[in-house]
Amino acid sequence: MSATRYTYLGPEGTFTEAALRTLPEAATRELVPMVSVPAALDAVRNGEAAAALVPIENSVEGGVTATLDELATGEPLMIYREVLLPIAFALLVRPGTKLSEVKTVTGHPVAQPQVRNWMSAHLPHALWESAASNADGARLVQEGRYDAAFAGEFAAVTYGLEPLVTEIHDAENAETRFVLVGRPARPAAPTGADKTSVVIWLDDDHPGALLEFLQEFSVRGVNLMLIQSRPTGAGIGNYCFCVDAEGHISERRVGEALMGLKRIAPKVRFLGSYPRAGVTPDEVRALRSGTTDAEFVSAADWLTRVQDGRG
Amino acid sequence: MSATRYTYLGPEGTFTEAALRTLPEAATRELVPMVSVPAALDAVRNGEAAAALVPIENSVEGGVTATLDELATGEPLMIYREVLLPIAFALLVRPGTKLSEVKTVTGHPVAQPQVRNWMSAHLPHALWESAASNADGARLVQEGRYDAAFAGEFAAVTYGLEPLVTEIHDAENAETRFVLVGRPARPAAPTGADKTSVVIWLDDDHPGALLEFLQEFSVRGVNLMLIQSRPTGAGIGNYCFCVDAEGHISERRVGEALMGLKRIAPKVRFLGSYPRAGVTPDEVRALRSGTTDAEFVSAADWLTRVQDGRG
Amino acid sequence: MSATRYTYLGPEGTFTEAALRTLPEAATRELVPMVSVPAALDAVRNGEAAAALVPIENSVEGGVTATLDELATGEPLMIYREVLLPIAFALLVRPGTKLSEVKTVTGHPVAQPQVRNWMSAHLPHALWESAASNADGARLVQEGRYDAAFAGEFAAVTYGLEPLVTEIHDAENAETRFVLVGRPARPAAPTGADKTSVVIWLDDDHPGALLEFLQEFSVRGVNLMLIQSRPTGAGIGNYCFCVDAEGHISERRVGEALMGLKRIAPKVRFLGSYPRAGVTPDEVRALRSGTTDAEFVSAADWLTRVQDGRG
Amino acid sequence: MSATRYTYLGPEGTFTEAALRTLPEAATRELVPMVSVPAALDAVRNGEAAAALVPIENSVEGGVTATLDELATGEPLMIYREVLLPIAFALLVRPGTKLSEVKTVTGHPVAQPQVRNWMSAHLPHALWESAASNADGARLVQEGRYDAAFAGEFAAVTYGLEPLVTEIHDAENAETRFVLVGRPARPAAPTGADKTSVVIWLDDDHPGALLEFLQEFSVRGVNLMLIQSRPTGAGIGNYCFCVDAEGHISERRVGEALMGLKRIAPKVRFLGSYPRAGVTPDEVRALRSGTTDAEFVSAADWLTRVQDGRG
Repeated sequence: MSATRYTYLGPEGTFTEAALRTLPEAATRELVPMVSVPAALDAVRNGEAAAALVPIENSVEGGVTATLDELATGEPLMIYREVLLPIAFALLVRPGTKLSEVKTVTGHPVAQPQVRNWMSAHLPHALWESAASNADGARLVQEGRYDAAFAGEFAAVTYGLEPLVTEIHDAENAETRFVLVGRPARPAAPTGADKTSVVIWLDDDHPGALLEFLQEFSVRGVNLMLIQSRPTGAGIGNYCFCVDAEGHISERRVGEALMGLKRIAPKVRFLGSYPRAGVTPDEVRALRSGTTDAEFVSAADWLTRVQDGRG
Repeated sequence: MSATRYTYLGPEGTFTEAALRTLPEAATRELVPMVSVPAALDAVRNGEAAAALVPIENSVEGGVTATLDELATGEPLMIYREVLLPIAFALLVRPGTKLSEVKTVTGHPVAQPQVRNWMSAHLPHALWESAASNADGARLVQEGRYDAAFAGEFAAVTYGLEPLVTEIHDAENAETRFVLVGRPARPAAPTGADKTSVVIWLDDDHPGALLEFLQEFSVRGVNLMLIQSRPTGAGIGNYCFCVDAEGHISERRVGEALMGLKRIAPKVRFLGSYPRAGVTPDEVRALRSGTTDAEFVSAADWLTRVQDGRG
Repeated sequence: MSATRYTYLGPEGTFTEAALRTLPEAATRELVPMVSVPAALDAVRNGEAAAALVPIENSVEGGVTATLDELATGEPLMIYREVLLPIAFALLVRPGTKLSEVKTVTGHPVAQPQVRNWMSAHLPHALWESAASNADGARLVQEGRYDAAFAGEFAAVTYGLEPLVTEIHDAENAETRFVLVGRPARPAAPTGADKTSVVIWLDDDHPGALLEFLQEFSVRGVNLMLIQSRPTGAGIGNYCFCVDAEGHISERRVGEALMGLKRIAPKVRFLGSYPRAGVTPDEVRALRSGTTDAEFVSAADWLTRVQDGRG
Repeated sequence: MSATRYTYLGPEGTFTEAALRTLPEAATRELVPMVSVPAALDAVRNGEAAAALVPIENSVEGGVTATLDELATGEPLMIYREVLLPIAFALLVRPGTKLSEVKTVTGHPVAQPQVRNWMSAHLPHALWESAASNADGARLVQEGRYDAAFAGEFAAVTYGLEPLVTEIHDAENAETRFVLVGRPARPAAPTGADKTSVVIWLDDDHPGALLEFLQEFSVRGVNLMLIQSRPTGAGIGNYCFCVDAEGHISERRVGEALMGLKRIAPKVRFLGSYPRAGVTPDEVRALRSGTTDAEFVSAADWLTRVQDGRG
């Protein structure tokens, strides 16, 4: 049964649910909202769910630390898919409420910086209080605790509200990246537009360690798309790094870079190789000369020949 | 009047207030709690306060994004001091409450991951709900909304509560770093154990840009203590980096590295050079050969001589 | 008197004399051939000559080690000019000699590899013996000791010979680079197409020293045109490096790179900044973004401003 | 028959012969002096000899360019052994000649800079003329053409001369490195103290190419012992590099670095992996952490596991 169950960061009506529903397979799965990222992921670890969809990065707020920390520690998990969702808020109110009547507003703390400018302009005197989630904020409006909530427009139906204003977002191009996480297995085959995620712990007493780890990628022509430091919990100044690199673990340059990291870092955790959302293979940046699989194979053949005296 | 007023992330009774009170000058300042980091810093920008104390990094949760983003954008500010505070929570209850009677608990969302293990062991069935701050949680206990709150032990007196358990912290060495922020001015003189903070924007189309910016530091023997990526708000994949480097801007190796960054990065913002908390000059890592001020001066003298034909 | 005397690697009739005569000022100087590179340079050191023209690099044979070693050690000297001369040999014979009569051939040892293929094709049975110089070879032909000599065509007149074959050179584009060397003085002003020569000693026990010295150049966008290792005389495995870099010592990126070298290398010797032969300013490779003098000045201004609290 | 014949740079009585005789196997080989390095090596290429011993590097004069250029071009050859020979000259005279009677001196041009100071002190008025080899100089003294020759003391017997002065060498630690060269075959097994020689051509239009090729070695912890630029013959500014690296091609870090070079360089020629002369395995510098064969194997195992979903 668990093979058909997907958990997600709930409650119902959040952007995470909307992101999950963009996956074709979601139509044939049982979708179960969970109260937190750890809860959604623990269900996968426990075998109660086949996969979990959780937010990992937001173009306004940055990395979702709960997700990064859960993936970096505990029982290993792997990312199989990513989803990019443009983020625009609607101001949800009980039917009939006018903008001039909105005195109190709620929403998830992450939403606040994304609508701050809009509020200054349109609701300068309204009071903001945080809710546990955007959807929870909608529920509190339904219950009459607040006059309005910022949430996805899709949440209006669930809570019997109406979207008074839509498409609210201070930043252009605001979007959130979600990942579909499962138990470790063989990664899907490369598509030509892939991404590889790892967590790297550095030797803290070694000042050049960060530079050295970047060189393991750069010397093999592997571009990095994200590098996010996270505290290890061992005190200020102790970090691990969550890294997204272009390419798939089955490609030679990526595999060799990962082996290089494995040799120099106290600890490396592979988080998966998976297709990049919103990028087709012909949109991928051309590989640097000398770093294609064909060139790796050709160099390995040469090495064998010279080792055999046939150079 | 503003010259004697310091704001801080309130309300009263938070760890931020406790950190602020460790500064000798706090005794002679008017200390004003503010509802948010932006509010505390805007008071400085507006001239209503001389400085603000805000959290910037937590050994469990990582960088405090609200503070990093505020320092990186808007009207420039500068860091003049840092304070390190060990973080241990007390479980505050109304006098007479027993542990077995605690069914609902509150606290700041940041506190939760720091006490999660303790709660699993000692309050496995209690319900957690987040409060706007640890101190606010204490107030809600005082008002009877919750049975207990995680907060600093020092908050008990303010809210008429008693610390039922103290020294609660899941992670060893949990601590938070706070910074005292003011309007830009000449940095204090170097002490021999200093730190320099900058924000660096990279050219997004240039895959090696991150490596190049690290090399501006490494080639001059400047060690980095923190590197934290933050989204610029221009969409997923667009980052700036908050960096703490060892040394003071008035030291040659640091100044030359900063000029190098300024030349290659689209934008650099200097956030200050200030004494390192908890480190004395003789505990500072020895400089790499060739990077002391004396060696910089000697090399500059040599250059002048050979340019004059006296090499 | 010495101010009007230029020495050169003799004897008369060599390529060095031909190179010297390409300099306009040569017309008004007393040109004195010397028996060796050290002799030509010692005359400059002793004040007997204002300058000396000596070969430093050959496109077939590589660096002229006698010149490199003389410049690297002993009383300091400086390069003020370079001359590039295409190298093509003539086969000089006594008037009337036919090719079929040539049984013995002479020339400078450096000439041999440059005419080897031609000899295999046209004089397969002739015997080669080395002479002290190409011109000396011509003299020996004049004296009847050999049937033919490889030398510059211009040497025919001096020794009463005739050029039986001209334009002999196995390699396309064969050329020799000569330098005009004087006592240290202020380098000439930059022309926009300049070159800077230095000798760098490395710390032998430090495996990464070579990489570090290259990074002092690369991090400031200074391209290298020549890197030639020379033994220091302290035993196998002990080297110094003769380096030609693009740019002039008075340009900021070059000056800062040289100071960086001075700080990390046990010893650096500046050999001069001088115009590149055969290259005009608009043929020079564009500077990397962030490395122009204007960008250095702008970054220094910025540093001053932030140090003064006006950032 | 050729399997038992070794050629060497002759004539008899040179240091090369002395070096060759230090090899145990020399006792059972036919040792054939040749007139030049190309002649000695061509005999190997033609199958007339099994191997050739030629000088490759001198602690005073640097790389032996004839040898480097022969190994870099033409039909491929491989180095199987190296020999280090301390270089000290004897002044050889016809029996009975006194030092005060020596007016003319000869020797190989390479010998001259190694005895220049001694001559200034002891034979200030003697005239130097170069001979084709040190042994040839001895022969010319035997024939009465010169009064004395600088050569190895061992040459005295061959030419009926007597060593008037011995142990002449301006530089302390003067030594020459010789290599035993054969046709390409499988390199000998690693001994724990090995060296790998390659020639690398760089892409001339790419200013950072030299730095990139050094990083292929440095990122895998492979130290370089020699880097010697040689002109490619395509004109001033076109070089290839002869490189000696610590380690054996069968060691993972070396093999991976060579494959990296092969991928980025237009051309790489493997010249052999062979035991280092004068160094035992326990005198070899410790490998950098993360670069041992065991660590490479362990990292490859890890890669396989995570690719299989067993990470």
